Amino acid sequence: MTDAGKTSESPAYDVVVIGAGPVGENVADRARAAGLSTAVVEAELVGGECSYWACMPSKALLRPVVARADARKVPGLSAAVQGPLDVGAVLAHRDDETSHWKDDGQVAWLESVGADVYRGTGRLTGPRAVSVTAPDGTEHRLTARHAVAVCTGTRAVVPALPGIEEARPWTSREATSAKEAPGRLVVVGGGVVGVEMATVWQALGSEVTLLIRGGGLLPKMEPFAGELVAEALTEAGATIRTGVSVTAVHRPAPDGPVTVELDDGGRIETDEILFATGRAPRTDDLGLETVGLEPGSWLTVDDSCLVEGTDWLYAVGDANHRALLTHQGKYQARIAGAAIAARALKTPLDTVPWGAHAATADHAAVPQVVFTDPEAASVGLTLAEAERAGHRVRAVDYDLASVAGSGLYATGYRGRARMIVDLDREILLGVTFVGPGIGELLHSATVAVAGEVPIARLWHAVPAYPTISEVWLRLLETYRG
Amino acid sequence: MTDAGKTSESPAYDVVVIGAGPVGENVADRARAAGLSTAVVEAELVGGECSYWACMPSKALLRPVVARADARKVPGLSAAVQGPLDVGAVLAHRDDETSHWKDDGQVAWLESVGADVYRGTGRLTGPRAVSVTAPDGTEHRLTARHAVAVCTGTRAVVPALPGIEEARPWTSREATSAKEAPGRLVVVGGGVVGVEMATVWQALGSEVTLLIRGGGLLPKMEPFAGELVAEALTEAGATIRTGVSVTAVHRPAPDGPVTVELDDGGRIETDEILFATGRAPRTDDLGLETVGLEPGSWLTVDDSCLVEGTDWLYAVGDANHRALLTHQGKYQARIAGAAIAARALKTPLDTVPWGAHAATADHAAVPQVVFTDPEAASVGLTLAEAERAGHRVRAVDYDLASVAGSGLYATGYRGRARMIVDLDREILLGVTFVGPGIGELLHSATVAVAGEVPIARLWHAVPAYPTISEVWLRLLETYRG
Repeated sequence: MTDAGKTSESPAYDVVVIGAGPVGENVADRARAAGLSTAVVEAELVGGECSYWACMPSKALLRPVVARADARKVPGLSAAVQGPLDVGAVLAHRDDETSHWKDDGQVAWLESVGADVYRGTGRLTGPRAVSVTAPDGTEHRLTARHAVAVCTGTRAVVPALPGIEEARPWTSREATSAKEAPGRLVVVGGGVVGVEMATVWQALGSEVTLLIRGGGLLPKMEPFAGELVAEALTEAGATIRTGVSVTAVHRPAPDGPVTVELDDGGRIETDEILFATGRAPRTDDLGLETVGLEPGSWLTVDDSCLVEGTDWLYAVGDANHRALLTHQGKYQARIAGAAIAARALKTPLDTVPWGAHAATADHAAVPQVVFTDPEAASVGLTLAEAERAGHRVRAVDYDLASVAGSGLYATGYRGRARMIVDLDREILLGVTFVGPGIGELLHSATVAVAGEVPIARLWHAVPAYPTISEVWLRLLETYRG
Repeated sequence: MTDAGKTSESPAYDVVVIGAGPVGENVADRARAAGLSTAVVEAELVGGECSYWACMPSKALLRPVVARADARKVPGLSAAVQGPLDVGAVLAHRDDETSHWKDDGQVAWLESVGADVYRGTGRLTGPRAVSVTAPDGTEHRLTARHAVAVCTGTRAVVPALPGIEEARPWTSREATSAKEAPGRLVVVGGGVVGVEMATVWQALGSEVTLLIRGGGLLPKMEPFAGELVAEALTEAGATIRTGVSVTAVHRPAPDGPVTVELDDGGRIETDEILFATGRAPRTDDLGLETVGLEPGSWLTVDDSCLVEGTDWLYAVGDANHRALLTHQGKYQARIAGAAIAARALKTPLDTVPWGAHAATADHAAVPQVVFTDPEAASVGLTLAEAERAGHRVRAVDYDLASVAGSGLYATGYRGRARMIVDLDREILLGVTFVGPGIGELLHSATVAVAGEVPIARLWHAVPAYPTISEVWLRLLETYRG
């Protein structure tokens, strides 16, 4: 917090960033690196959703679960890890990894790059104008000479079901910050949040029931990803019910159980219910109406993250709906920050595909790792996406269990790999790996896809033997046929 | 074994392969895929050193050690894995992974691709002529219409020290196939075999002393690799002594201990001594003298693996001394097999750098993973190698402990990454990662180096958050400065 924040003047900055999650932090960092004066406005904790209620706590909770699952498949070690995890130690570690929900470190970092931090709710009041309402009610009016960047992210969407308020449902925030494992937990939704949280709480002692409307888990990935994760989750003791929707919830006693009504007429009693059913942009209370945009909407941007129809408003990260992932938002932030600087300083813009000011990877090479047992990781297009986009492609599949390195990693290894070959350009459009120990392997695919490395050259990228990476050789051999 | 092997005729093949390790198997596979008749000669087990006395057993032994070391750094799991490994289970698994030193499966595979397998010692008797002396003394004389491929690999070199014979020292073979942990084990040599076997046997119960002539472990990697491995090995209880050489060994009683004399005047008593001090080509009993080459020499080849001065003799894998690694030998085998076929069938040769018939990666992108705690992995050139080769380079370093994914992987994470940037071409010449859980991360670097992906494009290869792979972003940021 700088002195500027204690006055109600109207200080002018080159750049005003609304939202100090990882995305806003990176926009500010790039703007400052270019010598632009920068204000950052944050209504909650500096560090954002990722640091306190998403990536960091979820992965702190998942790592012990996945490490135990892997260790159970290692001869000579498996017997020692049959027992339960030390839940207290896991939760204490999660608390450490979220800095106990305190943001001093992140504030210090932002200030160290020379950005001014304003605590409060930031709202546009017109072009290049932002008002900040501080917690004590003070209002600060900021002016942005060059750009305002909206980096406010998303919030969980909870469906407006009968009884939803009295049921006090969990969202991703409660699921990642809970202080103890509920006895029974119903998880609604089979996307990444749903499967990761089902994995965590089942392993930490809850009796988990996963309810999904569709037919499978992880519907945005290749179908085998959800199949393999569902298999392991079921073996771990969770119940998965497909093709069902929740129609109502009841929690008659404040501390009592929740009854969940389903569209097939069934009922489930549970201690907590988590809705992991989607995200909405945090743009509803942002003053968008003052600049001709619709409150609550996703903001449509070009590849430099400039909002359509403006020359000063940027939307970076989740709010632009390009790829709702921390790392992709940070990528956009680096690019948008550089583009803001180039436009401000009138240096050359490089917005051709894969240029320094174009977030081309958002279209072509978005990576994601789901930290479940088994891990599921993908980059670029799935087969279905590639076909929909009109590419002439071939899907090349390989059973990861047939790779020497997999068998050495875990006895009874189960996993699968797929690469999508663009038959016209002989490059890869997408790659998916599902199996234990493949999380770090994904980046090889990301380099291949984003680098548009020709198949003929990938033959010269030799995987070290005997790693799981040797699946690359097997995929190439399978493609050669 | 085919019928051909039971006669003493002189059958003609298109290709004769001497040595049926992974390299010979792959040459045969590629020759057969091109429709060339192929004989494979093997004096020991089909599958070679890698399958029975190197990669497979060593990694089967190492995986439990490394998995336990990693699990000990995971909150909620660490307490369960403080005890010793179940040594019997580990050794039994190693026995399974080596198929109990039986090669039926590998013979069946070779026969399935249509190669004839000859059991016995293969020797050149002149250009394109190979004699096979079978175990029963029968001799088979084979003719190769197009090519003979020497894929005989290497053997361990044991120095000719006083007392060496009576000491019955271990080489990599005994170290990977031992039926129990010796009480005390002296390991001589700090290369990959030395550090991997010291890691295994210390964890399986031996009191290990590692003796190295030079100043550090893993001397072919960046210096920090050996430093970090030495630190962990010492913490695991092993003793490392640098700057010492063994001058003599004594084992007065056949079942008694060995006394090791050192050049500093010291002595060590041990139960077994392993020499991991280098490899020599298995070309001494190959009939090289009949074709004007020197027995026992490394065979110098071009990028298609054709031996200098010949148009029919290939040396593939360790015997050509380009890169003594199974995966690199297999890579050469694919290329040599294709080159043999192209020359035999008079189809176009593609021997330009990175062409289909040029093992260019041998010079530019050899990957290696050392499966120790921490893992050490590298591809391409080290800083010292790049400078020696006259490149204008910059080494970019990053502390892996500062990556969010590292802290989530293991509490108290220690590790380091380095990339070598070619400042003239703005591509990477080499990358090294050292730390827990980085083995599968190496392939991202291998794709970047072999793919010659420009730094400007690597910025678009976004690492998934929060994986250890995010070190890529940190390295790029550090380079940008």
